[in-house]
Amino acid sequence: MSHQESLTAYLAAFVAELVHCGITDIVVSPGSRSTPMAMVMAEHPDLQVHIHVDERSAAFFALGMAKASNRPVALLCTSGTAAANYFPAIIEARYSRVPLLVFTADRPHELREVGAPQAIDQIHLYGQHVKWFAEMAPPERSNEMIRYVRSVCARAVAIAGQAPAGPVHLNFPFREPLIPRLEDDLFQLTDRPKGYVKVHHGESIINDDQIRQIAEKINRKTKGIIVCGNIDDGCFAEAVTKLSDILKFPILADPLSQLRSGGHNLENIIDTYDTFLRNEDAKKFLKPDVILRFGAMPVSKALSIFLKENLESDQYVIDGGSGWRDPFALSTDMIYSSETLFCQQLSALVEEKTSDHYLKQWLAINELTKENMSIVKDINELSEGKLFSQLVDLLPEGATLFVGNSMPIRDLDSFFLKNKKSIKVMANRGANGIDGTVSTALGAALYSKSLYLILGDLTFFHDINGLFAAKRQQIDINIILINNNGGGIFSFLPQSEHPKHFELLFGTPLDLEFEFAVKLFNGHFTKIKDWDHLKNEMERSKDATGINVYEILTSRDRNRDEHRKFWNSVSQEISKYVKGEQM
Amino acid sequence: MSHQESLTAYLAAFVAELVHCGITDIVVSPGSRSTPMAMVMAEHPDLQVHIHVDERSAAFFALGMAKASNRPVALLCTSGTAAANYFPAIIEARYSRVPLLVFTADRPHELREVGAPQAIDQIHLYGQHVKWFAEMAPPERSNEMIRYVRSVCARAVAIAGQAPAGPVHLNFPFREPLIPRLEDDLFQLTDRPKGYVKVHHGESIINDDQIRQIAEKINRKTKGIIVCGNIDDGCFAEAVTKLSDILKFPILADPLSQLRSGGHNLENIIDTYDTFLRNEDAKKFLKPDVILRFGAMPVSKALSIFLKENLESDQYVIDGGSGWRDPFALSTDMIYSSETLFCQQLSALVEEKTSDHYLKQWLAINELTKENMSIVKDINELSEGKLFSQLVDLLPEGATLFVGNSMPIRDLDSFFLKNKKSIKVMANRGANGIDGTVSTALGAALYSKSLYLILGDLTFFHDINGLFAAKRQQIDINIILINNNGGGIFSFLPQSEHPKHFELLFGTPLDLEFEFAVKLFNGHFTKIKDWDHLKNEMERSKDATGINVYEILTSRDRNRDEHRKFWNSVSQEISKYVKGEQM
Repeated sequence: MSHQESLTAYLAAFVAELVHCGITDIVVSPGSRSTPMAMVMAEHPDLQVHIHVDERSAAFFALGMAKASNRPVALLCTSGTAAANYFPAIIEARYSRVPLLVFTADRPHELREVGAPQAIDQIHLYGQHVKWFAEMAPPERSNEMIRYVRSVCARAVAIAGQAPAGPVHLNFPFREPLIPRLEDDLFQLTDRPKGYVKVHHGESIINDDQIRQIAEKINRKTKGIIVCGNIDDGCFAEAVTKLSDILKFPILADPLSQLRSGGHNLENIIDTYDTFLRNEDAKKFLKPDVILRFGAMPVSKALSIFLKENLESDQYVIDGGSGWRDPFALSTDMIYSSETLFCQQLSALVEEKTSDHYLKQWLAINELTKENMSIVKDINELSEGKLFSQLVDLLPEGATLFVGNSMPIRDLDSFFLKNKKSIKVMANRGANGIDGTVSTALGAALYSKSLYLILGDLTFFHDINGLFAAKRQQIDINIILINNNGGGIFSFLPQSEHPKHFELLFGTPLDLEFEFAVKLFNGHFTKIKDWDHLKNEMERSKDATGINVYEILTSRDRNRDEHRKFWNSVSQEISKYVKGEQM
Repeated sequence: MSHQESLTAYLAAFVAELVHCGITDIVVSPGSRSTPMAMVMAEHPDLQVHIHVDERSAAFFALGMAKASNRPVALLCTSGTAAANYFPAIIEARYSRVPLLVFTADRPHELREVGAPQAIDQIHLYGQHVKWFAEMAPPERSNEMIRYVRSVCARAVAIAGQAPAGPVHLNFPFREPLIPRLEDDLFQLTDRPKGYVKVHHGESIINDDQIRQIAEKINRKTKGIIVCGNIDDGCFAEAVTKLSDILKFPILADPLSQLRSGGHNLENIIDTYDTFLRNEDAKKFLKPDVILRFGAMPVSKALSIFLKENLESDQYVIDGGSGWRDPFALSTDMIYSSETLFCQQLSALVEEKTSDHYLKQWLAINELTKENMSIVKDINELSEGKLFSQLVDLLPEGATLFVGNSMPIRDLDSFFLKNKKSIKVMANRGANGIDGTVSTALGAALYSKSLYLILGDLTFFHDINGLFAAKRQQIDINIILINNNGGGIFSFLPQSEHPKHFELLFGTPLDLEFEFAVKLFNGHFTKIKDWDHLKNEMERSKDATGINVYEILTSRDRNRDEHRKFWNSVSQEISKYVKGEQM
């Protein structure tokens, strides 16, 4: 049996199995060593091959597709540093629980660690940051090895997808010659032609005794809150709002909880806590005796501090991915259960609360905070806070909003209020990096109609190469680029009080004309002049095609001052209100 | 003692020690967790802080400085995926033996693996790819801990620099508040104020008995060749050419051996072997009985095959870095000795050869090959081969030439001939990636006057962000951009015989107007029209400032045809010559 026949049969079986397991997309970066896999993949009619030259962007692009489709997406690159460029996206996938399949081509064993070109040590290349690593056997076409390669494929897909989802890495040693034999019946499998092994994914659930004990404890509490961070489960909104309704517990909903927008019951949703929990009077007034927390840690630092200050209350952390999402060691109960199932179980067992007094207090302060938002909404100049307060109105029904890290996600948290539109909010909150944001959004755009990306200038700059995917694949995307010429978040941190090295180390102005970057990729660039201009452009954006970048120039100092003015004003009003209530 | 005092004293001692150890440059990427180290570093008068927003480019920029200065250069970034972006450059540094000091800020222990923002597992983040990893103790200012931090610093610098040089990673946990107290006497150390421990680096050398045995063996051989790959030791050229002179062994000099240009004796240098060793008659005619190999594996595949076909000859691999540079398992003797010292030792012991017949045969075929280069030099259109054959004349005396991977380094190997100019040739040949090339060249430009970068369009695209350093630091660089709109090397590989998926997977045209990318960073862009235009521009380039990109449009197919025509023509001439000699 020839080398070429073995290589082809082995890889065709692997790729056929991959498709059987539901994989539809693979992002390939060009290279020589990965040739046999790339050619076999390109041959499969049901596998979409996306080409991306920069592997760092490629991996984030795959991440975006996986996030938006809730399915594993595969990556393929050649040997050497190409594979190392995947590392940032792999780490993000791990911490944000997104399934990725990373396939790297490698030199065969005899060419490793002997100074051969483009050969690096790829064994466990990503260390603890993948859920599973396998060094694949060299290609063979015996029945045994065909079973092996199909079984490993099914297993890799299963592990990537099982909660907590994450990245899996398979390393393939390939010998020369690298060209497979592409024949018509390439993907016809003799054994089990419809797939080798179907994996039935289970969800975590606690037993009746456990849930009854929790229900009894919660029955004895009167001041409860529900905190929801980043969570991605279509059934969760329904389940948690029903629970809130029974318990009369307000829901503090992070923008990534998907609870601020949509057709579910929004009544008990608290959406301005990041602002009013900066106020000491409010925090004392609203002191809870029990906290139920779902999803990742919320973005809001004010909320984190509030949770820390209530160490003595029962704190339940519900985590279907069996992690340990508790940075301040606050949890009294760590519950490894599907979040939706837990809400449903608990709703069936707890007594409906008769008083909604505590809930009403939260809602009143939430309303008061919103009333004060006029301070932000009345600003005439282009301003970051105002932009985020207007987003709900500017975005079309059914839009997906991808938000950059650093300031944008925080401003979204502060100013993006609950609404009946269907707007999905996405961000890279696994490791909160500014890298790969453009690519992740573009990947998401393939599975989410009407994608809007809002991000700062440093974040945009970090992943300019990512725009190549949009040009090559003619992806439609609207990008709102907030250009405050540097790292705006640092103006809010203690670093800003030390002017000596501030601009050098933290302000870091880029002084770039981003129009050139947009033109490089055949995009449309619009410098927004004023609010009317923005409104008109956003109206037109619904039908825009290709890359559309709307640059909004703002000032870091003015932005900080505007935020502080708003926070101070709200704080005064709330203190007044709380004192009035307490009299 | 306050947290702030401990933090400041600990880091000031570390940074003072870093400067004592000879470190002059640190590349910092902005971030919050790294604040205390960044601020203390910015305060040191003898440390140059370079800011780079994109950590991937930042790391390659540091690599370039380290390559050009032959001293370790330091990197600093914040926690999270920022650190993962360093990975490609760290791997390149490891395999190309370049000293790097990688400092990453991390969350303190209590915030690890608990869902805290921007916290990833940074312990052994780079796996086997660093020479040493240390998780640093949390900052303290006791005498013991000040001694500890200074000693670790000296040790990190020493390990990075000791042959084989490479990257070292220190991970620093920092607690909030992160602001150090910057006072005037920050860097005044009480104990050992001039540096804690001086490390005396030794070189590997074999003993008298060992070298005598080798000399005796070589005395019995008459047909020897010396093969020199990438090597970076200022004294090596003198030592190896002297050895060649005594032994009458030709030196097959890779462009990265630094032996093709310079004031040393060029007489025995063979510079066209990549062309004529494709000819079977030449290979039989020139069959050696002993091979001495220095440096990394040469770029030339023809030479690699020649070495493989001479398995029965004695093959000595001399490696001062004690590696295993032997991808085809050919070595009969692996010699862990400084390459220069080995040449000097051997020169003193071997008998001077009386016959130069074998050497003359090599030189004759080398000359014959050069005569046939007129086929390339007479091309009228812009052509890649001709460009490289003209480089020696186009570059000014004292220039440094940084060469991209893939086709450019191979064309340099084929067409860049020996010359008396002082031209240093650099490339990233540790892992041969196309990533980070612009940044590495820019880093090198800080330590090498008159830097010319020559690279292809995919390589340029991969590291567009790298140009930011040139804009920010006003670095002067001349970039010859060979734009054949895709991966030119694949036209020479078997992949090109399978047209079905060729352009999708391997040709990968970008279709970009690079002028926009250059303008984004305030650079000058020139589209070269013809050879006269290029000549004039290169003449003017000697005084050019800032970023200067000269784009040369070529065709992948025509390029392949031109190369093949040249190789075929040379091959015919050589076969004729060899047959004539053998009659």
